[in-house]
Amino acid sequence: MIPRILLSCLLFAAVSLPSRAEDGHDLWLRYRADPAAATVSTLVTGTGSPTLDAAAAELVRGLRNVSGREPARAHDASGAGALMIGTPRSLPQLATLSLGLERAGSEGYVIRRLAIRGQTVTVIAANSDVGVLYGAFHFLRLVQTHQLADPVDIASAPRTKIRVLDHWDNLDRHVERGYAGESLWDWHKLPGWLDPRYTDYARACASIGINGAVLTNVNANATSLTPAYLQKAAALAGVFRPYGVRVYLTARFSAPIELGGLKTADPLDPAVRAWWKQKIDEIYTLIPDFGGFLVKANSEGQPGPQDYRRTHADGANMLAEALAPHAGIVMWRAFVYSHETPTDRAKQAYDEFVPLDGKFADNVLVQVKNGAIDFQPREPFHPLFGAMPKTPLMMEFQITKEYLGFATHLVYLGTLFEEALRSDTRVKGVGSTVAKVVDGDLQGYKLTGMAGVANVGVDRNWSGSHFDQANWYAFGRFAWDPEGSARAFAEEWTRLTFGNDPKVVAPVVAMMMGSREAAVDYMTPLGLHHLMGTGHHYGPAPWVNDLGRADWNPVYYHRADAGGIGFDRGPGGSNATAQYQKDVAAIFADRRKTPEQFLLWFHHVPWDYRMKSGRTLWDELVIHYTHGVQVVSQMRGTWAGLAPYVDAERHAQVAAFLAIQEQEAQWWRDACIAYFQSISQRPLPPGVTPPAHPLEYYRALAFPYAPGRS
Amino acid sequence: MIPRILLSCLLFAAVSLPSRAEDGHDLWLRYRADPAAATVSTLVTGTGSPTLDAAAAELVRGLRNVSGREPARAHDASGAGALMIGTPRSLPQLATLSLGLERAGSEGYVIRRLAIRGQTVTVIAANSDVGVLYGAFHFLRLVQTHQLADPVDIASAPRTKIRVLDHWDNLDRHVERGYAGESLWDWHKLPGWLDPRYTDYARACASIGINGAVLTNVNANATSLTPAYLQKAAALAGVFRPYGVRVYLTARFSAPIELGGLKTADPLDPAVRAWWKQKIDEIYTLIPDFGGFLVKANSEGQPGPQDYRRTHADGANMLAEALAPHAGIVMWRAFVYSHETPTDRAKQAYDEFVPLDGKFADNVLVQVKNGAIDFQPREPFHPLFGAMPKTPLMMEFQITKEYLGFATHLVYLGTLFEEALRSDTRVKGVGSTVAKVVDGDLQGYKLTGMAGVANVGVDRNWSGSHFDQANWYAFGRFAWDPEGSARAFAEEWTRLTFGNDPKVVAPVVAMMMGSREAAVDYMTPLGLHHLMGTGHHYGPAPWVNDLGRADWNPVYYHRADAGGIGFDRGPGGSNATAQYQKDVAAIFADRRKTPEQFLLWFHHVPWDYRMKSGRTLWDELVIHYTHGVQVVSQMRGTWAGLAPYVDAERHAQVAAFLAIQEQEAQWWRDACIAYFQSISQRPLPPGVTPPAHPLEYYRALAFPYAPGRS
Repeated sequence: MIPRILLSCLLFAAVSLPSRAEDGHDLWLRYRADPAAATVSTLVTGTGSPTLDAAAAELVRGLRNVSGREPARAHDASGAGALMIGTPRSLPQLATLSLGLERAGSEGYVIRRLAIRGQTVTVIAANSDVGVLYGAFHFLRLVQTHQLADPVDIASAPRTKIRVLDHWDNLDRHVERGYAGESLWDWHKLPGWLDPRYTDYARACASIGINGAVLTNVNANATSLTPAYLQKAAALAGVFRPYGVRVYLTARFSAPIELGGLKTADPLDPAVRAWWKQKIDEIYTLIPDFGGFLVKANSEGQPGPQDYRRTHADGANMLAEALAPHAGIVMWRAFVYSHETPTDRAKQAYDEFVPLDGKFADNVLVQVKNGAIDFQPREPFHPLFGAMPKTPLMMEFQITKEYLGFATHLVYLGTLFEEALRSDTRVKGVGSTVAKVVDGDLQGYKLTGMAGVANVGVDRNWSGSHFDQANWYAFGRFAWDPEGSARAFAEEWTRLTFGNDPKVVAPVVAMMMGSREAAVDYMTPLGLHHLMGTGHHYGPAPWVNDLGRADWNPVYYHRADAGGIGFDRGPGGSNATAQYQKDVAAIFADRRKTPEQFLLWFHHVPWDYRMKSGRTLWDELVIHYTHGVQVVSQMRGTWAGLAPYVDAERHAQVAAFLAIQEQEAQWWRDACIAYFQSISQRPLPPGVTPPAHPLEYYRALAFPYAPGRS
Repeated sequence: MIPRILLSCLLFAAVSLPSRAEDGHDLWLRYRADPAAATVSTLVTGTGSPTLDAAAAELVRGLRNVSGREPARAHDASGAGALMIGTPRSLPQLATLSLGLERAGSEGYVIRRLAIRGQTVTVIAANSDVGVLYGAFHFLRLVQTHQLADPVDIASAPRTKIRVLDHWDNLDRHVERGYAGESLWDWHKLPGWLDPRYTDYARACASIGINGAVLTNVNANATSLTPAYLQKAAALAGVFRPYGVRVYLTARFSAPIELGGLKTADPLDPAVRAWWKQKIDEIYTLIPDFGGFLVKANSEGQPGPQDYRRTHADGANMLAEALAPHAGIVMWRAFVYSHETPTDRAKQAYDEFVPLDGKFADNVLVQVKNGAIDFQPREPFHPLFGAMPKTPLMMEFQITKEYLGFATHLVYLGTLFEEALRSDTRVKGVGSTVAKVVDGDLQGYKLTGMAGVANVGVDRNWSGSHFDQANWYAFGRFAWDPEGSARAFAEEWTRLTFGNDPKVVAPVVAMMMGSREAAVDYMTPLGLHHLMGTGHHYGPAPWVNDLGRADWNPVYYHRADAGGIGFDRGPGGSNATAQYQKDVAAIFADRRKTPEQFLLWFHHVPWDYRMKSGRTLWDELVIHYTHGVQVVSQMRGTWAGLAPYVDAERHAQVAAFLAIQEQEAQWWRDACIAYFQSISQRPLPPGVTPPAHPLEYYRALAFPYAPGRS
């Protein structure tokens, strides 16, 4: 029988301490009370650095909240259930244990349960303080997902060195292609006000192994390199430092003119070189661990070395030379998009960069998007991967969903990342995956990296929607391990975010795993691409044909005409297929061998072409569009059934967003079918519902205030 | 002795339910546990409307959290400590009690404690459901501020009818002159997603009696009147409706051209009139209780009736006629600012509007800013008040601090509101205060109102800073009672926000009460005005003299020259003083009689003019500038001393902001002294610290990304 006073205590606690709002702010670091989770009696920590202090603080926070009991702090592991964390240097006792620390490398960790003086102790050990921090976060992940069954002997080390978020954030806080509110960086109040959210950002990054943040937009503004703004960036760097997150900036190539008053930004001009050297030295006096620069040059109107008849290598190497003494790096984007219309935009990066292989300085990475166009719902892997053996190529993924439904569509990108990374370049035979190119394994890159265009902003839930948090999470996990599994990461995230109840985990993971294919189907099936609205990229606009240059227009990409649809990139067309290794090229060049998911990317195909299903291309296209909408409807139904198992607050938002997604998927499908039917002049397959409105209705829609504009 | 199980229960509750973050999100509706607060045993509520349900829900939420005990719900008040709420219609028992409900008017309430069948019962009664809601919020205020001592017999009714927030929010979510993040209205996701924050906004408004929200910027965009956007506005109206908050929109005068395809927007053109009538009818089919339009016309480049040689009355009356059948109103702004440079910008509103007195339709209010320039730190009251006896004038205050330090300066505006409202127009003799003009008492206006330019956005704490919440709060309280007390509202807000501990309340109220005078001193003392940076209005720029028209330049306003400083608005100058009632004019026209706080507003005064203090004007100016900074330093000190009594989270942010304020106050003071000294050519008074930098340093500062631009 419960004493009366206890009852009232419980009652008071229940009503007077309102439960934490389930608004998504805690991300996957929720640490909700869980009686089934493993506990820790005593915490023994190495001391001596803010990073180790951060690791200890995170463990205390997490374990206290999960178990309802704060672990005691001690100097020695006595008693069962102790947890020891540190490096051999910070906690010398660890050096005496047989941990296999060589497996951890310079940034990884070992988590091992072993007996010390007859007591079972768990150890989180690493060769560096940040490794301990990563291990602490992983340990908390294991606790929360109930995966700490004996025996415990885990070793993990990141497979890439540079794991960065690229923030396309402007100094006025507008985030280009951002759908989660304004920029996290409150430049106006920096450095005077350090929002606690900066710390939470760094915690979130560290928890998934992200070790760098490019604070500013690739469409760069020289003002970010002025003394006032460097002071602001330095303040952020100070907050991030204990969490192992280094600050990077974008470098506007013409900054020597705009800030330095020079007449040129020619990378071979001595005054220009001196200006950058001085500027970089100035940065390092303020930010001793500054990471370096990300540069978008000679692309979409940005200035660059080609303005002076110099190469990308000339430009990158100038910056690299000035950064090298400080151990800084240059990430030089291969997303080039010249002023002149090329025969096939998909070919341009390869054509410009392959001749430069071997000409970049050692501290330069070339940053390559997963596909050759621009973060479309589906693209074949970029032909540059594997084609520059002497130049480290880093992967650039887009976490923000510029082309995948903004914030309201539930589209898990783990499967997109996985598909790209598992693509086989074959440059060194079967198994030469993009993952192995990126992690350096295939071609021996010394520097390696992965960048994700961030999807975070000041929205309470960081990413604009609860499920978009999973894309940030999966990016970090893939950057750590490019051969990781989208499904495993989805399940991990789901357990951390919605709990371990199998009634929730299984259906949510299933929704996530099917969600990107659904978006491909209702937006751009069978290899179609770049059909979205002009400028804002919101909604369908396959009919647009009047923009200033050919390759801004959707019609340039789908090339639908009375005869068929698709972009001929085979030998009879732009011959972009020839940029791939010859066995791959042979597949992509042959429309019968090309996987149907890429068919219209590589081939112009007659409407009545017979698909593997036996259906005509036209019918298949309509079926795909229709199926995409059906999957979204199914997701809505699945989610509705989860109401008893998910808190009301998050359930309501996801449900509302799924309703929007269903409506917009229908819109995409109907508008595209209406448009393509006006060209194919073919009837819909039997039983298929026609578009709700005539084509003119869709063409007339306008969205002047859609978010995220460039 | 406490049982062991109870101890662990307490421990678990304490550590596993993290306390609510003190991030300011709850505003003054915190409802924190307080054993000293009055409790309610039973709640008896009238039923029958979403508004009564909202009142009951708020009482349950508040009382449960404050007392730790949820009141029982009952149909009858039996037992001591019951609370009955309702109207005589919704709870017929109330009709049998002697409550003095006639005191409540149509929107007010009575809170009374009385005996029913021998039991003490508290009653919140009103003649309308929204009156009950207002009474419920006031009751919760009394509970939290410990002001429910017997006997309780409170009657309160609002003294103005239209109590609105003007949101200068654009459709892309940028808030003009907003310093609290993007607009609350997520237009892109409306109507599909109704952010719970919309409900909290309505709760906050209702809690201080605000009954309307103009959703869109006065610099209006016709797109907000398109069907798609009206659907979005209707969704917001649906959320606000139970809280008595009606939705208003701004009307772009040229919308018949932009949306309707007409060739003119001439208000006397039948096609234009028909277009507006149709548009307004369309709005009311979607929003049956739509409030009406706010219009900025023929001001700062906005289109208006003068484009067609019609008057403001012609324009307003056209809209009013179409709104009248639906009981909608027009709020027509008197802030006119013509394309041509007038002799004195301060005179223009009066000159244009006084001749129109009596010509406006019954459902038009003319909305007048508190002063004749533009929301400066201090202005004399606008000469229009009292000068249009046949036209309801509503007050327009600016809650957002466009000219008062943005989000980081602690400036309580209650004293500014009070000063304006207590100003004596003398149009019907001594005591003809602006408050009595605005509330209709003086000149018998049937329609009355007060508007506040909102300071809210998506920032977690709504207003950009904790103390800026007080300005939203004070605005609402003054709109309810224009003769209210700034000090009383400050104390009320402080108790609700930081608790009832006198160690906190007294110093915080003292800081607030002195804060606006400090800002006047460090920015624009002695009647100076319009010295701020161009465009963004951030920081000092008294030297600016090169803008396109004379009255955009600070030098136009301060007129400093070798002989002296100030704008001669007396009979020998622009004669703006003649716009005031003759006794007031006689004071303002005489530099010896003019209060020194307005001296340089009305007079050009020699540098060596002897002030009441005995000092020269120059010395007095420097002393004021210096004193303003000193007060901020004192505020910092006071706040630092409050650390033991304020939660760490809010304390840290306020402390950081005060440090920024101190720095910027110093900057204002130093830059202005450096500049004016370059003109006065006089030495600083003995003992006064010279500016930290030479004038050129201040002139060179640039802030291209300061927030809140128009």
